[in-house]
Amino acid sequence: MATIPAPAATTDQREAFYERIADFHLAPLWTRLRSLVPAEPAPCGVPCCWHYDALRPYLMESAALITAAEAERRVLILENPAFPDGSRISPTLYAGLQLIMPGEIAPAHRHTQSALRFVLEGHGAYTAVDGEKTLMEPGDFVITPSWTFHHHGNESPGPMVWLDGLDIPLVGAFNATFREDHDRPEAAVSRPDGDSLARYGMGLLPVGYRRQSLNSPIFNYPYARTREALGVLARNGDPDPHAGHLMRYVNPVDGGWAMPTMATMIRLLPDGFATRPCRSSEHMVFVGVEGVVTLQAGEHTFTLGPRDVAAVPGWTRHTLAARGEAVVFAFSDRVAQEKLGLFRESRE
Amino acid sequence: MATIPAPAATTDQREAFYERIADFHLAPLWTRLRSLVPAEPAPCGVPCCWHYDALRPYLMESAALITAAEAERRVLILENPAFPDGSRISPTLYAGLQLIMPGEIAPAHRHTQSALRFVLEGHGAYTAVDGEKTLMEPGDFVITPSWTFHHHGNESPGPMVWLDGLDIPLVGAFNATFREDHDRPEAAVSRPDGDSLARYGMGLLPVGYRRQSLNSPIFNYPYARTREALGVLARNGDPDPHAGHLMRYVNPVDGGWAMPTMATMIRLLPDGFATRPCRSSEHMVFVGVEGVVTLQAGEHTFTLGPRDVAAVPGWTRHTLAARGEAVVFAFSDRVAQEKLGLFRESRE
Amino acid sequence: MATIPAPAATTDQREAFYERIADFHLAPLWTRLRSLVPAEPAPCGVPCCWHYDALRPYLMESAALITAAEAERRVLILENPAFPDGSRISPTLYAGLQLIMPGEIAPAHRHTQSALRFVLEGHGAYTAVDGEKTLMEPGDFVITPSWTFHHHGNESPGPMVWLDGLDIPLVGAFNATFREDHDRPEAAVSRPDGDSLARYGMGLLPVGYRRQSLNSPIFNYPYARTREALGVLARNGDPDPHAGHLMRYVNPVDGGWAMPTMATMIRLLPDGFATRPCRSSEHMVFVGVEGVVTLQAGEHTFTLGPRDVAAVPGWTRHTLAARGEAVVFAFSDRVAQEKLGLFRESRE
Amino acid sequence: MATIPAPAATTDQREAFYERIADFHLAPLWTRLRSLVPAEPAPCGVPCCWHYDALRPYLMESAALITAAEAERRVLILENPAFPDGSRISPTLYAGLQLIMPGEIAPAHRHTQSALRFVLEGHGAYTAVDGEKTLMEPGDFVITPSWTFHHHGNESPGPMVWLDGLDIPLVGAFNATFREDHDRPEAAVSRPDGDSLARYGMGLLPVGYRRQSLNSPIFNYPYARTREALGVLARNGDPDPHAGHLMRYVNPVDGGWAMPTMATMIRLLPDGFATRPCRSSEHMVFVGVEGVVTLQAGEHTFTLGPRDVAAVPGWTRHTLAARGEAVVFAFSDRVAQEKLGLFRESRE
Repeated sequence: MATIPAPAATTDQREAFYERIADFHLAPLWTRLRSLVPAEPAPCGVPCCWHYDALRPYLMESAALITAAEAERRVLILENPAFPDGSRISPTLYAGLQLIMPGEIAPAHRHTQSALRFVLEGHGAYTAVDGEKTLMEPGDFVITPSWTFHHHGNESPGPMVWLDGLDIPLVGAFNATFREDHDRPEAAVSRPDGDSLARYGMGLLPVGYRRQSLNSPIFNYPYARTREALGVLARNGDPDPHAGHLMRYVNPVDGGWAMPTMATMIRLLPDGFATRPCRSSEHMVFVGVEGVVTLQAGEHTFTLGPRDVAAVPGWTRHTLAARGEAVVFAFSDRVAQEKLGLFRESRE
Repeated sequence: MATIPAPAATTDQREAFYERIADFHLAPLWTRLRSLVPAEPAPCGVPCCWHYDALRPYLMESAALITAAEAERRVLILENPAFPDGSRISPTLYAGLQLIMPGEIAPAHRHTQSALRFVLEGHGAYTAVDGEKTLMEPGDFVITPSWTFHHHGNESPGPMVWLDGLDIPLVGAFNATFREDHDRPEAAVSRPDGDSLARYGMGLLPVGYRRQSLNSPIFNYPYARTREALGVLARNGDPDPHAGHLMRYVNPVDGGWAMPTMATMIRLLPDGFATRPCRSSEHMVFVGVEGVVTLQAGEHTFTLGPRDVAAVPGWTRHTLAARGEAVVFAFSDRVAQEKLGLFRESRE
Repeated sequence: MATIPAPAATTDQREAFYERIADFHLAPLWTRLRSLVPAEPAPCGVPCCWHYDALRPYLMESAALITAAEAERRVLILENPAFPDGSRISPTLYAGLQLIMPGEIAPAHRHTQSALRFVLEGHGAYTAVDGEKTLMEPGDFVITPSWTFHHHGNESPGPMVWLDGLDIPLVGAFNATFREDHDRPEAAVSRPDGDSLARYGMGLLPVGYRRQSLNSPIFNYPYARTREALGVLARNGDPDPHAGHLMRYVNPVDGGWAMPTMATMIRLLPDGFATRPCRSSEHMVFVGVEGVVTLQAGEHTFTLGPRDVAAVPGWTRHTLAARGEAVVFAFSDRVAQEKLGLFRESRE
Repeated sequence: MATIPAPAATTDQREAFYERIADFHLAPLWTRLRSLVPAEPAPCGVPCCWHYDALRPYLMESAALITAAEAERRVLILENPAFPDGSRISPTLYAGLQLIMPGEIAPAHRHTQSALRFVLEGHGAYTAVDGEKTLMEPGDFVITPSWTFHHHGNESPGPMVWLDGLDIPLVGAFNATFREDHDRPEAAVSRPDGDSLARYGMGLLPVGYRRQSLNSPIFNYPYARTREALGVLARNGDPDPHAGHLMRYVNPVDGGWAMPTMATMIRLLPDGFATRPCRSSEHMVFVGVEGVVTLQAGEHTFTLGPRDVAAVPGWTRHTLAARGEAVVFAFSDRVAQEKLGLFRESRE
């Protein structure tokens, strides 16, 4: 094989070539290869923390500015400072705080995006999904599967607030969003509170049951039960050095993650326990549930108390240290990354 | 339940509120809900066609401008006119034409992205992946799995051109890209041409074989074999009204798509056959292999001959009509959409 | 093609031939084809019922005859009358009543066979499996997976009785039985009561958990929880006409049956509800839990009250009719039949 | 806990008890436990070998005794000497040599049992399954899935002989056999030879294809292709010390075994290569294809040439040693054992 002499083209010749081919919707890869395919993820989004107590007054003020009905969803988006007006907390995830006041109804609609609710404050407001209503309590993890009609209501005397987590940017990357409004504010409810938990979440499944979607058919994973599981796990064994007592919410139909695009997890950290540093390609959102945790993420240090929310972008080295026994909920895009072969983790 | 009076806030009051909360990295959802969650995908990318004969001179000119070694990959990106400098043919996909001249070597590297090669012109250049070399012929579909070292070489007397398809924008949406250059231009080759096809593609698997990745272990799906299958299918049955005789490349380990992020397919359209209109949420890239096809995509009409490439963005109504028996290769992001619960199709 | 004249061989000639080839370990298929491959299953086993109250005195008498330690397992086998000395309740299944008296220990061993326990009488005896102990209550369904060390003990003041269900004949058909005795009567117990239920049965799984076997990692499915699920199911919907409110115990790791060879199910029949006739290829064992059911199986009619056991061989037409609300547990070889492609059901 | 004094029952008292409870269809487990649940499989069936050349004259003689039409299937059963009149070659498997003479048709029927054919002698007879006909050549592996109508015919000038392998005893253990005769000797054939191989066996699947059964949709795995795969495997790597170059026939739909109850495999042993001793719980049937192999199984030594058949019962230590390069086909019940959690292997 003959040796290939390097072409003698000058920079100018090349630039002229690039201009000519642009008319044909062609571009050289070689000038872009290193930025398109970098050696490591460059930071995308910054670590950030939202303290509930500081935000709550604004949330309540929003109730005076707009009704749930007018807003369709009265939500304050938690926007990553790196993406102003980006409506995202991380490259792939959306998070917001939703408020529903006594007597209000957030009208029924459905959309391609999957949504999770993690209840922060209040008792007894409900979400209705696909004909079933669930009353929600703090710490409950509630799923609104893709393309199911859902509305929210509050028949309790106090306000109710939960964290919304959605895959809006992820679905947006595929440009595959569909939405449909229901013709009435409230979709019909035909099954009572707790039906799906009894039907699918007690270690049994109805014989002949066939899955309807990639989401778990359990609609509300109540905190009381989750907390009991964490307590037993903590009493009976040692925490994982990098994660603590970490459990994932599970779809009983296949044992996989509860939702097809967003991984949802909860962990208990014993008093004084600190995780060893690790980083992974997933974009994480943490929510304090019990106790106080010091979250170190890259150069940032946050104190995460109950109801506080923090974002840690992918491939950011981070640790969690508990003062007193602590419980932390989290969601991320890990499940999507795993399915696509992209998930990567580095434990120190 | 009492009726909720609508809050009396003025537009100005609301705007002032939005400004105040922005300091806390908060934003109202209600002003953005309709654009974040639209009723249907708005067009994202435009249908576009690249005629090989028109592009080929520029491709050959590029050989005089830069060597494969200097370029690392001498590729002209097919860039969707809707995304200038976007380095993508559709929202989630990258495509380019790669040229390798006699005697050249495109040096070894690996990256998170999966790559497919569909051979357009030339005989006998090779790709080496993970210790195996495959000689390539027109119509061959070759896989470079995520994170496997690969290099290309051409020991034949003529130039070789293939279409590269990668999931660069899709992986980019997760900000989960890693790349590593090999310390030598050519990674070691320990298995001869055809090994993986014999090992995994003959209806058998070695007892005890364990999958290494989510990609098919078959590295080259030769066109001769694919064409034979299409021929039999066409002789023995009727084409699908919306798709023709459409087959998908398969991972023998699990029967799923051959690659974890990109769906790869090939179809035969009998002489005179025209598909009924359909649209789906996947972003498609078509490549002509045999015969001539009229591709109608939205308002655009393209004539797709051998080696021509066309992009049809998601949710664009389209049809294919064959003049003479035609074979068309295609790839799309359907497999990723299916796994995430996003794929949707409408057949008329 | 020429017509083939029928060979003129006489019966004697054929018989002589059969004798000659027998020396070579050959035999003609044609004389046996109809019996080897019958048009339908011929009855194999008969429907039979065991009334607990009638058996209990003998069970207690056995305690005076042999200790648990001497017996290794003090069990009275429920033997199908069609198979005297066959040690089976149906062609593929074994069932027995196991008694453990206060202070006794049934020593630790392990075997290839999977075992289920369904508790009939007593409170607070335990089974220990693989380092975990579970206290058992009536109605609890407990799994002893294949090849796990297990022993039973009774620290309560009264006798304890449960139904043992094993796949002994099924495993026997493969001649694939292994057994090992532990070197001590009691294997070490390292995890407290309830650990596996909390760890695997609360809608969560520990992140990083990897399955150890084909059995569910939940070791005891407590009746209190099962009964709650049945109650909700019954309140919120209509019973299946052929099955009532029928649920299956589930392996949370994959959503499949809880055990790899034996299907385990429980159903609620509303007061006055009678199932429509059906038959299936599975061999069923029913156990009354609450209420009274009339079981019609072929020509037999049985009254199944709490703790009564009945066998219904495969392909026997049967119905269940409840007097008062009734709950019935069942196990069968359905899961094995499904995996092997043998399960068949006919609903009238 | 108080010590339990051993009951003072005499043997006579116990025997009397056993007699009394027998009336209630009860039996003591403790007198049978050791035999029901042995420490290791006791030999069940003996190793045995059938030399084709010795049997062929009888096979041909059978053609003079009975027609294919009269016999329905003209087959000489290979009967394990340990089970006279048992119609089985091993505890779970049936094997026989089927002869079809020029012009004959073995009439169409279907049954629950799955059947495999491994062609030994002749060219160009056919099997028709489910509307497709395949012409068979020596070494071809052909599947007749459970409950599909099939008939055989011979339009060639010479006799054709193949090995039939069926799961008759295994299905018999479940008493789940159904059979139906077609109303005509020949079921309709609507697809030509080779259709299923092209459709499902070329590394592609038709988009939208849904599996019809647990069997591979590939109907004939032709030897020419299999041999090519074995040759490449042997040239490019080292044999497994216990198995040689061992491959399994695969279901392209899920990557699992080609059949749901019987594992089918083929191996190449290089000239002079001998496997190390191993034993497993599966019952194996070996068929010589090329070359000569010395099979040592327990105390038996057999010389296995082309078309010779040997049975090795489960848990029998065995080795294979090749004189000249050899190819050996095998089938076993391994796939059923794996699904049920029973498979066990010991490699020395």
